[in-house]
Order: sequence, then C-alpha cells, then structure tokens
Amino acid sequence: MKLGRFEHNGKTFYGIVEGEEVYELEGSPFETYRKTDRRHRLVALKALVPCMPSNFYCAGLNYAAHIEWANRRTGGNRKVPEKADIGYRSPNALIAAGESIVIPADAPGPVEFEGELVAVIGKKARNLSEKDALSCVLGYTLGNDVSERSWQKQDRTLWRAKNCDTFKPMGPFIVTGLDPMNLIISINVNGATASEYSTSKMLFSAQHYLSQISKYMTLWPGDVVWLGTDNATEPPLKDGDRVEIVQKDIGVLGNPVVRAK
Amino acid sequence: MKLGRFEHNGKTFYGIVEGEEVYELEGSPFETYRKTDRRHRLVALKALVPCMPSNFYCAGLNYAAHIEWANRRTGGNRKVPEKADIGYRSPNALIAAGESIVIPADAPGPVEFEGELVAVIGKKARNLSEKDALSCVLGYTLGNDVSERSWQKQDRTLWRAKNCDTFKPMGPFIVTGLDPMNLIISINVNGATASEYSTSKMLFSAQHYLSQISKYMTLWPGDVVWLGTDNATEPPLKDGDRVEIVQKDIGVLGNPVVRAK
Repeated sequence: MKLGRFEHNGKTFYGIVEGEEVYELEGSPFETYRKTDRRHRLVALKALVPCMPSNFYCAGLNYAAHIEWANRRTGGNRKVPEKADIGYRSPNALIAAGESIVIPADAPGPVEFEGELVAVIGKKARNLSEKDALSCVLGYTLGNDVSERSWQKQDRTLWRAKNCDTFKPMGPFIVTGLDPMNLIISINVNGATASEYSTSKMLFSAQHYLSQISKYMTLWPGDVVWLGTDNATEPPLKDGDRVEIVQKDIGVLGNPVVRAK
Repeated sequence: MKLGRFEHNGKTFYGIVEGEEVYELEGSPFETYRKTDRRHRLVALKALVPCMPSNFYCAGLNYAAHIEWANRRTGGNRKVPEKADIGYRSPNALIAAGESIVIPADAPGPVEFEGELVAVIGKKARNLSEKDALSCVLGYTLGNDVSERSWQKQDRTLWRAKNCDTFKPMGPFIVTGLDPMNLIISINVNGATASEYSTSKMLFSAQHYLSQISKYMTLWPGDVVWLGTDNATEPPLKDGDRVEIVQKDIGVLGNPVVRAK
C-alpha cells in the first residue's frame, strides 16, 4: 500500500495512492482511518511531507563506502562506528517532493545530497527485540539529508550543516510491506545517475537501530528514522540543479535547487 | 502573565495561573486565545509539559564556570565555544513537573542535573536581528537537561546521554515579560542548594542565539531554546532523590528520581 499526505483546495488529508488515483482517508494511518470513495487524480493534488515527526532520528555513517570516500575527500579519519549511536535532525528543515532546496547565500559549500531510506514509525513502541523491531514500522519513504560540508567541518554541531530550512526533503510516499534491507536506492542529479547502492550494505540494520533506540526511548507514531547513505555524494548541488532520490516502489523524491540571493 | 497547560477530567487545556487559581483558555497562546471564566484550583489540576515543541534547541557549553568544572572533573579539554552553534534534544524525553526521572537500569552513571532557562517561541520568525530577537518569544520556563555522563563520554552522539525517556523535565509554567539575561536559577537536590547562578553569565545571550538560529531556520510557535547551565552539576542523581530547578517568577520544576529495575 502506498500512503501520502495531500493538500487540495485548502484541505489537508491522507490518501491511498493507486496508480494515478488517490482515495481520500478519513483519519490518519498513524491512528485509525477509513478509506472513503472520494477519489482524486494524483496530478491534481499537492503532495505534502508524508508525516511531520515528533522525533526525527538519523543514522550517520551507516555505510562503509561512504565513510571511506569522506575520509579520502577531507583527509579525515572517521572510523566505522562500533555502535549504532543515533543522531537527530529537526523538522523545520522538512520539505516535500517538488519543493525547492534553498542554499543559504552565505554557504561556502560544497552542498551535497545524501539519499536515504527512511523508516516511518506507525505504532508506539518500547523495548523491541531485533526480531520484532519492524513490527512498529508503518512503511518506508525516502529522504535527502542535504549537507553543507564546510559548516559540517567547522561547527561544533550539525545545526546549520544539516538543518537549514529546506535541507530535509522527505517523500514522496510511505510504502508498506517492503524489506528495508534489500532495496536499491539511486540518486540522480540533472538526470544523470550520481550514486546507486543497496540497503543490504548498511553497517547496522534497520532492525538493530530500532531495537537499540527503543531500549531507551519510546518510538511514537509518525517518528522517522533515516538510515544513512552510501558512496560519494557528488557532484555538489548548485543553483538550477534538480536532485532526485529514487526507489522503484516508493517513487521519486525530486527537488529543484536554488541559491538564496 | 503565567501560562500553563493542564489536564483535568480527561480534558487538556491552556490556562492563566493567578495565585492559586487557573482560568481556562479557549485556544492556545501559540495561536489565538480567549480567557474564559472557567476557573479551577491550581492544586486540583495536573500540570503538563507547558508546550510540545516541534523543534527542540539546546545550547551546550554556554557558561564558563560549567566548562571549567567539566574539564577539571573529566580531565577534558573543552574550550569555550567561539560561536553559538546550537544543538538539539528530542521531545520523547520531555516530562512535566512532578513526573519521575527514570534512570535506565544499565546506566553506568553518574546521572546529573543541568538546570536551565528555556525560551519558548510564540511567533513564527526568520532573520531576526539581535535587537529584535526577543520579539518572537512568548515567555520563559525552566528545563532540566538530565545527562548520563558515561554515555556522554563514550557515545558518538548525545542520543541516550541526554534523550532517554524522562530525561528532559520542562515547566512548570511559561512566564511572560522576564529579562532572560538577569535571572537567578537555583538547583536543589533533596532540599539542599546544589548550584545557583545568574543568567547574566551566559557566554552567548538569548538574543544572540535566537538571532543566529533564525538566520538559517524558521522559528515556529511552541519551539523551545534551552540556554545552558552554569557551575558544577553535582551531586549525581540517585533513586529516591528529588531535584528542583527554581526561579522565583517561573516557579519550581521539581521531579523525583527513580532507577529502573
């Protein structure tokens, strides 16, 4: 099942996407809902960020080839993490598919994409075993963990490197029933493939991250866990570009890039 | 004006606290509201976390004496920050005054308080000058940035060191019209004063933090900015303790401490 959140004529609602049509839901997939017979053409709706998380988790350094590349590029010495220490991002930065990534005027750059699989929590959960960890997941979507590399290097935290307004495209839809450890994710910049990787290469699995988080924290419906990116994240994004994160079942998270004046 | 969020007979509402009484609001102080004549005795209500933030900002290392103490204690070498790089916390960890701080069973400790002033955003804002920065603030409350020091040292991020469920007491009320740079904050453990400091000693002012954040991020109504703590943060908290963060206008953020079995 493919779930989205939409706006139409000033009204916001969840819907089930079936081909080129959307059936409006009463309620929400994070509580209870009923599929109605109110039907829209997908192209007639504005797709919104599929959920606004209360808690926004993000795995850093979850693929070996990305770490190796980052070390080569920056002359850095980041090690493969020994534990699944989760990080955070901030909801102010979320935008939907189709909305513009705005590079701040004073960003030294480079600004880069990081295409990621995102687990969307559907049920309140605590103390999940790895075996049961996916039971709390409603489905999966895509995220672009846009990153300003100069600020990432020079600031004490990732605040503006990764959380500027518009730096967290997420969407387009939440798809149920996928195996998070066996998906191919592609990143296209201006129509050319910039990176392609399999989520089977995660250093710590989705199951492991969810189990570990739930040892200490309650996972809430609508929370999201971004699961990291692999490979190099070049070319850098610049004014006029279009960047797409693609997975065949979830769809295309495409966003234009503009530079603020 | 003293604003709170309350629960009574299964209903949640905002209220204005006047002495020992609470006047129920229709609406919320983050949108529009009307003071009603529905009046409650304060002691008859359950006080909730005064707001659930979408974006939860937290200044680390914002007072010199706390940094010096932390370095002496850990043999560390943290420098006074050169810039107001803001950090993040996660709403799952919020609890109200009176609720229990639960130390996880496997926490090596020490677990310590950090009593802080909290700015609560009331209006959507972007690109505020320092001069105008406080115009977006609804009022101020108190926070206890409870911290597990072993995890803070050994993990790659602050996830479980500072974001375990119950590790972020906030409240009891939001008070308008205060000068954030001239307040005395006391921390009591089991009735004895453990720390007392003036917010005039902030390394970066509330105005500076809000202005800097708003250069890159939209501040939203209900967002909170925790402004750091001064001094040593001892004695460590243990099962059976009661910890209070106190400021005379805002009130007492008091929480019992228990250790999970």
